Amino acid sequence: MANGTHRPALAAVIGGGVIGGGWVARLIQNGVDVRVFDPDPEVPRKITAIIDNADHALARLTIAPPPARGRLDFAGTIAEAVADGELIIEAVPERLEMKQAVYAEIELVAANDAIISSSTSGIMPSDLQAKMGWPDRLMVGHPFNPVYLLPLVEMVGGKKTSHETIRRADEIYRAIGMHPLHLRKEIEAFVADRFLEAVWREALWLVKDGIATTAEIDDSIRYGFGLRWAQMGLFETYRVAGGEAGMAHFIKQFGPCLKWPWTKLMDVPELTDELVETISSQSDAQSGSRSIRELERIRDDNLVAIMQALKANDWGAGKTLANWEAALYDAIPAAAQTDITMPLETLRRRVPAEWTDYNGHMNEARYLDCFSHATDVFMRMCGVDAAYVAAGGSYFTVETHIRHLDEVRANAEVHVTTQVLAGAGKKLHLFHHLYEGDNRLLATGEHMLLHVDMSSRASSLPGESVASALADFVDAHAGLPIPDGAGRAIGVK
Amino acid sequence: MANGTHRPALAAVIGGGVIGGGWVARLIQNGVDVRVFDPDPEVPRKITAIIDNADHALARLTIAPPPARGRLDFAGTIAEAVADGELIIEAVPERLEMKQAVYAEIELVAANDAIISSSTSGIMPSDLQAKMGWPDRLMVGHPFNPVYLLPLVEMVGGKKTSHETIRRADEIYRAIGMHPLHLRKEIEAFVADRFLEAVWREALWLVKDGIATTAEIDDSIRYGFGLRWAQMGLFETYRVAGGEAGMAHFIKQFGPCLKWPWTKLMDVPELTDELVETISSQSDAQSGSRSIRELERIRDDNLVAIMQALKANDWGAGKTLANWEAALYDAIPAAAQTDITMPLETLRRRVPAEWTDYNGHMNEARYLDCFSHATDVFMRMCGVDAAYVAAGGSYFTVETHIRHLDEVRANAEVHVTTQVLAGAGKKLHLFHHLYEGDNRLLATGEHMLLHVDMSSRASSLPGESVASALADFVDAHAGLPIPDGAGRAIGVK
Repeated sequence: MANGTHRPALAAVIGGGVIGGGWVARLIQNGVDVRVFDPDPEVPRKITAIIDNADHALARLTIAPPPARGRLDFAGTIAEAVADGELIIEAVPERLEMKQAVYAEIELVAANDAIISSSTSGIMPSDLQAKMGWPDRLMVGHPFNPVYLLPLVEMVGGKKTSHETIRRADEIYRAIGMHPLHLRKEIEAFVADRFLEAVWREALWLVKDGIATTAEIDDSIRYGFGLRWAQMGLFETYRVAGGEAGMAHFIKQFGPCLKWPWTKLMDVPELTDELVETISSQSDAQSGSRSIRELERIRDDNLVAIMQALKANDWGAGKTLANWEAALYDAIPAAAQTDITMPLETLRRRVPAEWTDYNGHMNEARYLDCFSHATDVFMRMCGVDAAYVAAGGSYFTVETHIRHLDEVRANAEVHVTTQVLAGAGKKLHLFHHLYEGDNRLLATGEHMLLHVDMSSRASSLPGESVASALADFVDAHAGLPIPDGAGRAIGVK
Repeated sequence: MANGTHRPALAAVIGGGVIGGGWVARLIQNGVDVRVFDPDPEVPRKITAIIDNADHALARLTIAPPPARGRLDFAGTIAEAVADGELIIEAVPERLEMKQAVYAEIELVAANDAIISSSTSGIMPSDLQAKMGWPDRLMVGHPFNPVYLLPLVEMVGGKKTSHETIRRADEIYRAIGMHPLHLRKEIEAFVADRFLEAVWREALWLVKDGIATTAEIDDSIRYGFGLRWAQMGLFETYRVAGGEAGMAHFIKQFGPCLKWPWTKLMDVPELTDELVETISSQSDAQSGSRSIRELERIRDDNLVAIMQALKANDWGAGKTLANWEAALYDAIPAAAQTDITMPLETLRRRVPAEWTDYNGHMNEARYLDCFSHATDVFMRMCGVDAAYVAAGGSYFTVETHIRHLDEVRANAEVHVTTQVLAGAGKKLHLFHHLYEGDNRLLATGEHMLLHVDMSSRASSLPGESVASALADFVDAHAGLPIPDGAGRAIGVK
């Protein structure tokens, strides 16, 4: 499967419940215009609440600049919703006849090359497409709640689904920050929901038999294996646990448990040598290029600070996030498109709850976090991007002076403006202002940076294009007043 | 169950595999002396590797000061290992006869009030204790790999286990940073492993039938519901997904799936009204004090930066971590016990991988993170602790000056020393040095702080005991030279 991405201009979402609403939020956050149809008059209110949650989450998830938000319209009919849509998402209740009736309406007006993606959790796509005129464009794209945050989407084609439909859907899902997983065989409930169903049925037995309450069952998950599964799945986790003896040894060691009454769900496969070998070699192909030692370290780091740390480790769901952020950064307008005669807006975000400390306000260290991110955005405006750094140049901060003038609480919207005080030769002198809302000044940050050669780690002159872009900013800011607090020291009485 | 904690002085671990070794690491990190017995001559090497992993993880998990590390000894016999041990952990292979033979040896020498805790994943404690002379002190304490990191331990008593044994074990597990979950009924495989077994059996079917590979199965978990289960379990997740209609509605809506072939494991409970009501009311008791809206927000925040963010949210596994850290901070020696005539060591840790940035070194903002934590430790030395803050006083940083003098890579050990330049009335003037290893200077941090009244958020005089502790530090540091760089400003040319 290619890893290209393609962002559609317009999508339709039929059904505005928790899943449909989650799709809407993810799509508009990623710059896709969306038309929604749902006969329930409460749907606009419900979707607004979901988008509100999604915006709250996005502010914590990334400081990468979002694309211009997609437009959201509520359509009066299915036909109105799907006309001209490149991607048509069906998220109506899990009843085959209802879904087939929706496809019939869609087919009256949809473009021949529109992708029709069902969000069903379990109905087989061959059944969904059975009565369609052009069934090749129907597939299952099964997401997970909350759709605007969880990256997984299971893609399943039916007997009549074209390869081209799956390929194009893969590109679209990647473009909106998801991790498409293409399943090659149809089966009811696909893969993830078979696990959820097995756990659900087992949990029902445990509750029914009075073994554990819902709270105890939840705790048995979230204090233990749930933490593991946020970063590795079943097989890789067991591979690591099995250690140097290998996966086949692990399976055989635990094989006898399959004969024990360790679940209420008793129909089990025969553990033939062939099955053991299949699992063992698949696990080799999946994980064999890393030693157990490396896998343990990756696992442990992930368990400590999962979502954000996954990004730092270029692993799993964090990799999905990083790819998506990189695309957003690539889309930052070049400096020439911005009014650069005033201090530049280099950061706008909400204060995450986890940035606050025992004093009930944003921790002092997060002030520098804001200024550091603002400096990074300004760097990219000057052409210091991933390619420039890879080619061997960058700027390092050598001195920082912060005046913490006022406190700020969780969820407040803050922004940073950046003024260039000087920038010639190896040196760059920046001055940031951090505000809450329009103009409540929270802090100033004054920073001296040096350009460095990334091989020698010694100071060096920037490349010509960076020097030139920087000179433009210096010229543009030459007439601005020197900001209050610049050049100040902490006084020793 | 009371929430008191008790840290034993000495523990024995019988069996030094992945689970036994994980117990050893967690215990010595928490200041418990441990004697290990395992006839395998490779065990000292294997346990050293596990402890190395655990230390790597601990450096990322917390900057709270660890207690003096427990002593590790390898015993030549079971008798030598368990003599005088307050907690005796059995972690030998899952064979009833072998475990019973181990208990017989333990009973020859163990103290009458020693707790004997089996790490079995599935054997019922009534069977384990069947042949014991003093069976009241045997229980199951089932941990999860990696034991040094995952907080869950399932506690299960057998027919003859005393309440006192369970109560004391609960206090011990809490003292070493774990979340004990007391299961009131015996059942094979307890609770968590029944889910793992159900998922494992289902996964075996999917692989056997060629529906998905091990890698695809793992991705279907870790990009989707695995992220959810790191912070909420099955029932609370579904409660949130079900929204305002409530848990009973959710169960009934998805009830029909139980009749569908959505798992290979087909023996399912009858969804009677009574069962629906049981689940619904248990879920109310568990989650009903929060609105769906609140739960959604908690869920979303958790998904973004799970382990560390869970701590900030005082929720789930993060709460376990926070409680444990608080106990470690409480154990910091009072200032009187430290030589305070030299700059004070206020931080020592390794640089986590996620603190580094695209320049391949610790991000500039993390320098202030280090200084901020160092300031917090100094604050506690002066008596500004959780109780002082709760009573209405604290210090806020108003100005920061950092000289970033050198770069530092992931995993390097760094430490901070703190010198008091001035501290009288409302003001406090601190100067930190950040070093890698013994003496490679990475940065200096100069900080002006003001004491504040937490109600009015205005500056105020500190309490007498804090002012007095601070005065002692000021006197002790009065003869130290003014550090290089103090009082400096970033020069505007």
